[in-house]
Amino acid sequence: MRLALSTWPEVEAYLETSKGIIVPIGSMEQHGPNGLIATDAICAEEIALATGTAHGVLVGPTITLGVAQFNLDFPGTVTLRAETLMAVIRDYVRSLVRHGFERVFFLNGHGGNIAPANAAFQDLYADASFRADRAGASPLRCRLRSWWEYEGANTLRHDLYGEDEGLHATPSEVAITQAAYPDAIKRVEMAKPARLSPGYYRDFGGDRHYDAVHHRHWFPDGRIGSDPSLATPEAGRRLLEILVPDVIADYEAFLAEDTP
Amino acid sequence: MRLALSTWPEVEAYLETSKGIIVPIGSMEQHGPNGLIATDAICAEEIALATGTAHGVLVGPTITLGVAQFNLDFPGTVTLRAETLMAVIRDYVRSLVRHGFERVFFLNGHGGNIAPANAAFQDLYADASFRADRAGASPLRCRLRSWWEYEGANTLRHDLYGEDEGLHATPSEVAITQAAYPDAIKRVEMAKPARLSPGYYRDFGGDRHYDAVHHRHWFPDGRIGSDPSLATPEAGRRLLEILVPDVIADYEAFLAEDTP
Amino acid sequence: MRLALSTWPEVEAYLETSKGIIVPIGSMEQHGPNGLIATDAICAEEIALATGTAHGVLVGPTITLGVAQFNLDFPGTVTLRAETLMAVIRDYVRSLVRHGFERVFFLNGHGGNIAPANAAFQDLYADASFRADRAGASPLRCRLRSWWEYEGANTLRHDLYGEDEGLHATPSEVAITQAAYPDAIKRVEMAKPARLSPGYYRDFGGDRHYDAVHHRHWFPDGRIGSDPSLATPEAGRRLLEILVPDVIADYEAFLAEDTP
Amino acid sequence: MRLALSTWPEVEAYLETSKGIIVPIGSMEQHGPNGLIATDAICAEEIALATGTAHGVLVGPTITLGVAQFNLDFPGTVTLRAETLMAVIRDYVRSLVRHGFERVFFLNGHGGNIAPANAAFQDLYADASFRADRAGASPLRCRLRSWWEYEGANTLRHDLYGEDEGLHATPSEVAITQAAYPDAIKRVEMAKPARLSPGYYRDFGGDRHYDAVHHRHWFPDGRIGSDPSLATPEAGRRLLEILVPDVIADYEAFLAEDTP
Amino acid sequence: MRLALSTWPEVEAYLETSKGIIVPIGSMEQHGPNGLIATDAICAEEIALATGTAHGVLVGPTITLGVAQFNLDFPGTVTLRAETLMAVIRDYVRSLVRHGFERVFFLNGHGGNIAPANAAFQDLYADASFRADRAGASPLRCRLRSWWEYEGANTLRHDLYGEDEGLHATPSEVAITQAAYPDAIKRVEMAKPARLSPGYYRDFGGDRHYDAVHHRHWFPDGRIGSDPSLATPEAGRRLLEILVPDVIADYEAFLAEDTP
Amino acid sequence: MRLALSTWPEVEAYLETSKGIIVPIGSMEQHGPNGLIATDAICAEEIALATGTAHGVLVGPTITLGVAQFNLDFPGTVTLRAETLMAVIRDYVRSLVRHGFERVFFLNGHGGNIAPANAAFQDLYADASFRADRAGASPLRCRLRSWWEYEGANTLRHDLYGEDEGLHATPSEVAITQAAYPDAIKRVEMAKPARLSPGYYRDFGGDRHYDAVHHRHWFPDGRIGSDPSLATPEAGRRLLEILVPDVIADYEAFLAEDTP
Repeated sequence: MRLALSTWPEVEAYLETSKGIIVPIGSMEQHGPNGLIATDAICAEEIALATGTAHGVLVGPTITLGVAQFNLDFPGTVTLRAETLMAVIRDYVRSLVRHGFERVFFLNGHGGNIAPANAAFQDLYADASFRADRAGASPLRCRLRSWWEYEGANTLRHDLYGEDEGLHATPSEVAITQAAYPDAIKRVEMAKPARLSPGYYRDFGGDRHYDAVHHRHWFPDGRIGSDPSLATPEAGRRLLEILVPDVIADYEAFLAEDTP
Repeated sequence: MRLALSTWPEVEAYLETSKGIIVPIGSMEQHGPNGLIATDAICAEEIALATGTAHGVLVGPTITLGVAQFNLDFPGTVTLRAETLMAVIRDYVRSLVRHGFERVFFLNGHGGNIAPANAAFQDLYADASFRADRAGASPLRCRLRSWWEYEGANTLRHDLYGEDEGLHATPSEVAITQAAYPDAIKRVEMAKPARLSPGYYRDFGGDRHYDAVHHRHWFPDGRIGSDPSLATPEAGRRLLEILVPDVIADYEAFLAEDTP
Repeated sequence: MRLALSTWPEVEAYLETSKGIIVPIGSMEQHGPNGLIATDAICAEEIALATGTAHGVLVGPTITLGVAQFNLDFPGTVTLRAETLMAVIRDYVRSLVRHGFERVFFLNGHGGNIAPANAAFQDLYADASFRADRAGASPLRCRLRSWWEYEGANTLRHDLYGEDEGLHATPSEVAITQAAYPDAIKRVEMAKPARLSPGYYRDFGGDRHYDAVHHRHWFPDGRIGSDPSLATPEAGRRLLEILVPDVIADYEAFLAEDTP
Repeated sequence: MRLALSTWPEVEAYLETSKGIIVPIGSMEQHGPNGLIATDAICAEEIALATGTAHGVLVGPTITLGVAQFNLDFPGTVTLRAETLMAVIRDYVRSLVRHGFERVFFLNGHGGNIAPANAAFQDLYADASFRADRAGASPLRCRLRSWWEYEGANTLRHDLYGEDEGLHATPSEVAITQAAYPDAIKRVEMAKPARLSPGYYRDFGGDRHYDAVHHRHWFPDGRIGSDPSLATPEAGRRLLEILVPDVIADYEAFLAEDTP
Repeated sequence: MRLALSTWPEVEAYLETSKGIIVPIGSMEQHGPNGLIATDAICAEEIALATGTAHGVLVGPTITLGVAQFNLDFPGTVTLRAETLMAVIRDYVRSLVRHGFERVFFLNGHGGNIAPANAAFQDLYADASFRADRAGASPLRCRLRSWWEYEGANTLRHDLYGEDEGLHATPSEVAITQAAYPDAIKRVEMAKPARLSPGYYRDFGGDRHYDAVHHRHWFPDGRIGSDPSLATPEAGRRLLEILVPDVIADYEAFLAEDTP
Repeated sequence: MRLALSTWPEVEAYLETSKGIIVPIGSMEQHGPNGLIATDAICAEEIALATGTAHGVLVGPTITLGVAQFNLDFPGTVTLRAETLMAVIRDYVRSLVRHGFERVFFLNGHGGNIAPANAAFQDLYADASFRADRAGASPLRCRLRSWWEYEGANTLRHDLYGEDEGLHATPSEVAITQAAYPDAIKRVEMAKPARLSPGYYRDFGGDRHYDAVHHRHWFPDGRIGSDPSLATPEAGRRLLEILVPDVIADYEAFLAEDTP
């Protein structure tokens, strides 16, 4: 069930059955020679919709713009500042809380959103925490999960692409977009990527990259250690299939957490 | 050409031919008994895409969340504060300027966005205006146009629905969403709306509504003087058709404005 | 009755008779070869005071600084950023609400204030709308009316000056300042202005101008299509006279709006 | 010379003779049983205009709203938050710098403005200080002087009223408003005030008061240790006369400070 | 009793005996040829700890970063913007209020903090003042006292160093750091300082300095009219000894102020 | 070498040898029945100082306040909002950049700082990334490393305490504070903690806790799965010893990263 394609009486009815919602969050940034600008937003949205459709969970409108300042030297990247994304998340969540939602599960497609999203949650909770009145405690709980945190998907990524998966503009994410938008598949030749060191994963995971000029100097065609020319729609479908049961289990465990 | 479904080299190539872009901007808010929450975002996006596809203009990712605080008493509405939307627009435009875009044409689907968007433009220009150096003048120009400003569409709205068009949750906007998402057409019975006074249009146009409790008190099912049960996908298609030539002419005149 | 020239017990007494107030809002910016920097502030204040004096309505202190970034290339212009004006309006209105005022009528003299003022109202209402508690609904209602929205004044402007009225540094606004400050009338020779196209009114109305360097390039002496050398104090007095009944009727209708 | 009543060519001409300007800054807050809400703004403006008129110094538009949160329990007080006043001062000064002004002298009428104004100056300077490029050093210098800092005025205040001068709603400031607005003189009987301790002056000088409910509890009619029933327009004129030579000497010394 | 070195149950127990706390606030900025970057933070902390230890008052964690933009041209200075320090103070005080503290006494070591701290207090109070509900009045009271405001210390400073005390990088403040950190005493030869005029004290007291390039131009080795080569640890100990009784008396008078 | 205990000429000399600095960042929050409020700040500072002393690296002043809103229901916790910590980090880093520092290594002691610190880095980089001029690329690089990310320390934590280490108020962090502040060791009896599930580590690692009332409900004495009664100063010394070589190697690799 998509919030965007629902009427308000339908949302009202949903709220009588559940206080939970899944919110996809992505990015609009370069994804290498053949990846779509919207790759991260599409991945998050497709996974969320597949899960929501299969299990009757409401899926909120996708937050399509994320924090991608390090990709600004590649034409087409549209980024928010971290503090802007925090404001967007704050207003979005406060809107949901206004309607009675209590558990907001962000399905994330972009590493650069992890820090600002978690910082935004801190300030949402802080609004309640600074108030001395325990009786008025907020029922709100937020969680952000990136789709590559799921074991099954990760194993499949490795099985499909090994070291060619890389860290950005990966064949897996491109594959998911190919499954979703078959008319927008781009065929581009590209060289084999250089291998990333384990240290690179440790230091720059979660897109902890420097500024845009640094970034393009190191990764001139936008890929980070990946070979997205290997992507296929079929691989995208397999990734979506393997993700849905993991996402729904995770979401349901989140809903089932006990209440103080 | 959709930025979201392009690669960065494709955007780079586009920039060699044009410095202009169309950015749809909508809202996620209740649209009466049978209107979709995403109505305003869908209308803006559909009109922009129809125009961009027909005339080779790049269409940026839709700003789906707008300022809709007055609808928060209806479940499902997700609003930004005006200052948050201003930050989103600022970052979005600054990203485009980074790539060399100079004329940003916002195709708007929601009255509540007009004030914050124009205020955001003022502050973007102010960044340049406060600098004393004339040589470093910014080439940026922004324009926001709401689709109901176009004569042809307005005449058609009146021809189709007369006074039943109303001000919010109108049959015309619902019709456009029906043309775009035929699987999401909702059939709901509803009473004939009360007529709005000319004074109401004058005072509350541009969604200059009060807070959410005021608003729902006056418009308990979310419609403002409209009968969206009259919407049909066919009417939506006609509206899109009549809009494209007007939008492209307006956009091209914007691009052709002379340069100081 | 001017708030500025009242004592607090006098304001307390006023509040027992009315919850309404008129707040003039203007700008400090160039107004062409013979117009005063304070033109917009003076116009708003004079109209508000004439109305308040005639009808016993409290007039708050004038917000003299507005958003006029596009005039910064002309010496003497003092502008606020849009977000600053929004903060000023927010604090001003919250102060009034603290005392029990419920209806705040902004009498506006500057197009550049329309967007930020309406955006500020949205965020003031949003503070209430985000709260779920309907019982605690805010009674606050704000309205901004620019004096050129009144039919009578507009007809008189046209009768007096025809196309020479123009869009900025108009003979009408200069005339009002001449009526108010006869010692500050400036006599300056100037060429006849170029005519503005209808498209210019549509696209740049509400002072939707670009940055300061753009603006001065197009309008090198600060006028926009106007001939303010035609202004006379007598015309200013006639405009004030014709405005008062329209303003008071509009204000009283605002006070008389029903309550949710 | 008043900026507000000048044209832009007049300001342009002034800038060829001087880079300095005087900016009055006041407050809109209760001033006891017979003091006007605008007392602080009027005092600052009158002193600045008397000085500017006598000595050909440009006087900018008065910042009429200051930080007066502690007076919000008295009807009519309109306050800015400190951070809002800082934004107003920042934009005002940056506008002046855009035109070539280098020395901005704030003539202050309200203790509650001292902290935020000086904090605003710090952040204006910080914009330059954070930049490493010494060549691009900012020529901007700001100074805030409250009119009661001048020896001559202080002696006269004491000679006129002794301990009845008090700290707020003083007979001296009310006298200045009576000289300026003789039609707005209010005659109200009031009890003799309680005497303030030296510790009160030390701890609460600069309006370092607590919140509004604290403040009204301690000073239920709004006066702080003063007897403003003693005010006369004649005393106001004497204060203005004695202030002008001190203000102009101070201002000229500020302009004459050497340049790094 | 140091909050930093306490457990939460110890703080809980303290709160049953007192609602007051002392918070040291300093700066990290150059202090001339032989002064430590942390001089202001050390002085504030040492005085607060000496007082707290002697009299059983809880001492909160030191705010070590202050507003020192004017010293940024000297390597090692770390400054906050005024608005950042205001946010730090706001969050700190709101945390204390959450636990039941009602009187927060800031012991200050840096002139540049006075304006932003007092501005921060205004906005903390404003949060309460804007609320109309008198019953919910905030019990919070804040005070900032700089250690050089105490008579005894000032007399001793003068007795020890006369005019060589100066305004910044004074031998007295350096002496306190020498008493506290004997291992970090630096011996540096330096010329006798130029004498400051009384006007300099009046205009630049409270660190009302211009930007960093201005500042270093006037004071190339960082001292302002002082000879810190005269500092001795013994003098530092004497200053601490003479300060403690004055600080505790002042603090206790603050706690004993009556309650509205 | 401690920046706080250095003079500005000493910092100037250091900068001729290195562009790198280590900045400890901690928190002031409850750490269970026997842990100090300052535990996280002390751990970060001790590790940084031990490293800096052994290897001649400059250590900046500790950021002692972090984001700990979830601990506000325990007396003594002092938290910043995430957006405030971001502002502190921004100003701190910009101060360092002003002096020529290019690589800023944050040694972190508190999970709740990870998200806001990385978000702050994003916005610092964004300031450069939004500028189109590649020649003016910023040399700034920031890294945040939490001390429990080091393999050696983690192994030792496990060897020393096994599952009793837990997630907050761990015996290891308490041990480090005992080594640093032997006079502040608290002996408190406490029950064995409940075991945490692996899911708890996954979902709440990096202190992704909900608000303060939630948090205290689940962990009523402040510990999260830990037995800090097992802490000893000796264990603290061992942890410090094992950390220094890992920190310095990591820091030096950071300095040695190549330059775009």
